[in-house]
Amino acid sequence: MLYLVGLGLADEKDITLRGLETVKKCSKVYMEAYTSLLSFGLSSTGKSALENLYGKSIIVADREMVEEKADDILSEAQSSDVAFLVVGDSFGATTHTDLVVRAKKLGVDVKVVHNASVMNAIGVCGLQLYRYGETISIPFFTETWRPDSFYEKIRRNRTLGLHTLCLLDIRVKEPSLESLCRGKREYEPPRYMTINTAIEQLLEIEQNRGESAYSEDTTCVGLARVGSEDQVIVAGSMKQLLTIDFGPPLHCLVIVGDVHPVEKEMLEFYTFGKSSNQIS
Amino acid sequence: MLYLVGLGLADEKDITLRGLETVKKCSKVYMEAYTSLLSFGLSSTGKSALENLYGKSIIVADREMVEEKADDILSEAQSSDVAFLVVGDSFGATTHTDLVVRAKKLGVDVKVVHNASVMNAIGVCGLQLYRYGETISIPFFTETWRPDSFYEKIRRNRTLGLHTLCLLDIRVKEPSLESLCRGKREYEPPRYMTINTAIEQLLEIEQNRGESAYSEDTTCVGLARVGSEDQVIVAGSMKQLLTIDFGPPLHCLVIVGDVHPVEKEMLEFYTFGKSSNQIS
Repeated sequence: MLYLVGLGLADEKDITLRGLETVKKCSKVYMEAYTSLLSFGLSSTGKSALENLYGKSIIVADREMVEEKADDILSEAQSSDVAFLVVGDSFGATTHTDLVVRAKKLGVDVKVVHNASVMNAIGVCGLQLYRYGETISIPFFTETWRPDSFYEKIRRNRTLGLHTLCLLDIRVKEPSLESLCRGKREYEPPRYMTINTAIEQLLEIEQNRGESAYSEDTTCVGLARVGSEDQVIVAGSMKQLLTIDFGPPLHCLVIVGDVHPVEKEMLEFYTFGKSSNQIS
Repeated sequence: MLYLVGLGLADEKDITLRGLETVKKCSKVYMEAYTSLLSFGLSSTGKSALENLYGKSIIVADREMVEEKADDILSEAQSSDVAFLVVGDSFGATTHTDLVVRAKKLGVDVKVVHNASVMNAIGVCGLQLYRYGETISIPFFTETWRPDSFYEKIRRNRTLGLHTLCLLDIRVKEPSLESLCRGKREYEPPRYMTINTAIEQLLEIEQNRGESAYSEDTTCVGLARVGSEDQVIVAGSMKQLLTIDFGPPLHCLVIVGDVHPVEKEMLEFYTFGKSSNQIS
């Protein structure tokens, strides 16, 4: 049996009782290290906190390993119980869906233990979940690659008065271009996109496209480390949020659509300049 | 301090370690009984399973109580630790946002312990979360009230190739019309909408509107009791799903948009007629 166990958002205490019970009975425990590695489990202290809690060792699996060694993991799961731990909930990333598809094709049973993910925890900022349009992902710009296909989605959401959740790029264990040219894999240091970088990129795109999907005066909500003790949530214009240091990862951003009265009241608690008044 | 604690989807084992720790230290524990009461906590066995786990008694709070006695709950939270338990995650329903707004206005600190909700657990069917458009809620038709304002949203989502999550009506402790006329509150028995009823209503609306937002041949995914041991997930046309008995609540429905290759592969595991081949 392959168990996909969501770990939730902040630390080892966010696993569910069902999840903990599951991990304890598994003979092998893998943990994904690509989607949200920067939020927890990255540091050796994060990993050992989990190992102490579970009473067993964890094999950290980066994307390469999951993609290349999926068959090995799955053949273990054919004869014993294997847990695959995922930060957030299990189906946040396509890679996990792919693992499940491969498992099913091999006749390996799969069970899922759900947990919170940013896709629902974002509700904490007070904007109602059913008033979000399509979610977008913002990748890091490079010198030669400055994608803006999500611009149209933001424009569409805003035209409809809907909020847009922007997931910000995480680069973990990316082979460096230089090393690829030399034919030997070496990795870039991990990087995560800050709210500030996301807004700078968004404004650059708006300047190029000029279709007024949004502007530096558009209200947004910046959220850092959602679900952890030191989460930061600030609502303000893009221009205002650009001046804030949101601290360590992970960051995400909501571009606000039309707001209903209760949403408005909640956002006021997070308003730029009033950020001591937080719900944590 | 007011703690909003998400309970997750299925039973008492879905609380997180952080959530359990929180509940154990609170002097008073309320549980919402309106949004998803039918999934767990409804039966006295459900409630006592939670009470045994927490080692304390739970006050079940229906919508009326939360709306009318919010100030009492919040004044307790001013001087001691109060937990408010919510099935799923805390911000699924506007009522909870409203409670938080009232708390903040009274200067009561609020902390949130997140958990899975149907809004992210729906990922289990294999359709990627970032490819959903606006979520809709389908209310029960009555003789005189047959709302269809969500039709336009489904049409829009489908035009964009996006999936539509349909949350289905739950009626708990609704005063009966008759009793309201007599000026004395009496309540209808609890009701929840089945996938079948939802599809019947959707097809009636399509017939009236005739704009071909969808038809009885449109692919949908019906999900019952997501996250529990006996969850059922079946993908098929509306016409096919109409023939299935999905069993006890809660039910929800996804109207499928364009499908990417990995999504297609996952849906195949759930295809109508192959439903033994399930991920649970």
